[in-house]
Amino acid sequence: MEIIENPQRMQERANQLRAEDKTIGFVPTMGYLHEGHLSLMRRARGECQVSVLSIFVNPTQFGPREDLDRYPRDMEGDLQKAASEQVDLVYLPSARDMYPAGFRTYVTVEELSEKLCGASRPGHFRGVTTVVLKLFNLVKPHRAYFGEKDYQQLTIIRKMVEDLNLDLQIVGMPTVRESDGLAMSSRNAYLSAGERRSALSLSRALKRAGEMVAGGERSAALLREEIRRTIEEEPNTQIDYIAVSHPLTLKDLERIAGPALIALAVQVGSTRLIDNCIVEAHAQ
Amino acid sequence: MEIIENPQRMQERANQLRAEDKTIGFVPTMGYLHEGHLSLMRRARGECQVSVLSIFVNPTQFGPREDLDRYPRDMEGDLQKAASEQVDLVYLPSARDMYPAGFRTYVTVEELSEKLCGASRPGHFRGVTTVVLKLFNLVKPHRAYFGEKDYQQLTIIRKMVEDLNLDLQIVGMPTVRESDGLAMSSRNAYLSAGERRSALSLSRALKRAGEMVAGGERSAALLREEIRRTIEEEPNTQIDYIAVSHPLTLKDLERIAGPALIALAVQVGSTRLIDNCIVEAHAQ
Repeated sequence: MEIIENPQRMQERANQLRAEDKTIGFVPTMGYLHEGHLSLMRRARGECQVSVLSIFVNPTQFGPREDLDRYPRDMEGDLQKAASEQVDLVYLPSARDMYPAGFRTYVTVEELSEKLCGASRPGHFRGVTTVVLKLFNLVKPHRAYFGEKDYQQLTIIRKMVEDLNLDLQIVGMPTVRESDGLAMSSRNAYLSAGERRSALSLSRALKRAGEMVAGGERSAALLREEIRRTIEEEPNTQIDYIAVSHPLTLKDLERIAGPALIALAVQVGSTRLIDNCIVEAHAQ
Repeated sequence: MEIIENPQRMQERANQLRAEDKTIGFVPTMGYLHEGHLSLMRRARGECQVSVLSIFVNPTQFGPREDLDRYPRDMEGDLQKAASEQVDLVYLPSARDMYPAGFRTYVTVEELSEKLCGASRPGHFRGVTTVVLKLFNLVKPHRAYFGEKDYQQLTIIRKMVEDLNLDLQIVGMPTVRESDGLAMSSRNAYLSAGERRSALSLSRALKRAGEMVAGGERSAALLREEIRRTIEEEPNTQIDYIAVSHPLTLKDLERIAGPALIALAVQVGSTRLIDNCIVEAHAQ
């Protein structure tokens, strides 16, 4: 497994691979890898001749009072996991190389970036799209893989790729869950045993909402109310948002009539967790 | 000479050329070609195996009260000029293809885009960087050519290329002037005979400032004052700005101590003209 730290070296290597006509599959991550990341790496390896993993805790997507400093890191464990998944190349840029003094260029996807998580994390998605575009330009992938756990991020990146005419394919992969339903997230490492029990209310509430839609419920307000009730039953939970939205525009829906995104963000103790599902109204 | 209008077709052609190991030289323009553009095309042809010219009057870089609708156009003449300069490929995107309904992604180079022309044309450089990045992704050039007449634009594009890790080289080329000194610009077509005489004060003032620096003058305020006097002597001139700036950061200089940009924008009648020069203070 090849490890590259220098951006220029990464770009040269990507050019080399492209000159050899190799297809490049890319999984950008912030590390502290879990099964969700591994599923992306497996898919990349299956579909592309060379799989590239990047690990970079991107400072520009954290707000000033967010968890950049305590974001969990485990480089040794991550490299072991990457090796056992037969990743071909790991790119480990430094913050100084990615954002040298005088860095001033940002990519913004308007509207989509202001909704849901964007409303409570101003600047977050600008940081995401900027670093993802930089990584794309350095790694030059044919395909890039993202988890649906970060559904809004995936939607925004798809939009950026379309609007900027980027010549690559974005592949979204289903959220991987623990056996009890908790969506896998590096931030789960923050949870105490009690908080982890409370955190189960997120997936439980989404499951309940999905059942209500399957049973004929079409009112977004009633779905949100049921989700709120389910989560607020648990101690140490504080809801940031519960949204029933159009899956492409992320605009609020009043009634479900076709596919819909149900997304939520909840503070559990001091940890902000997100989860989502797609529901679909079929003719009754 | 090949002509392509469709973005996907352009990108496929670029991929084809790259697969054949051809170097691509790119000259993005808004058309109404003059000697300045032709000098870029010649350089591209001399340095690269395939030269691509784009003609696109980019709506996102015009403000609501600017001259988008009356911007001069001459497609037939432009294609003749391109052909006689032996351009290999002309890309002619439509506004609808470049900005389909729902387009929302923009690239901003902060600070640099807010100074000089950016102060009087809010959003202008955001439009420029966004369209240039899109064109780069479609044409996939190894080198792209820009005139120093639009010095701030060139500086901002260089910064974008650096910050976003774009894998191409930006080549700046000297301003081409009419024999009487007027910097070539498509907007010169707007000028009446009298306005054209007034417009000569821009290059005359810059020349005078250059002589003052060569003669030992180091005060930006005195240089600006002399330029102001020279331009205001002429009828129908209204100064937008006169700047003595650092050539990379575009920050105002008080004294000249090394290379400096002198840049100005003047409304002549209803036409906004810009010009600039680089001066250099040598030890006396």
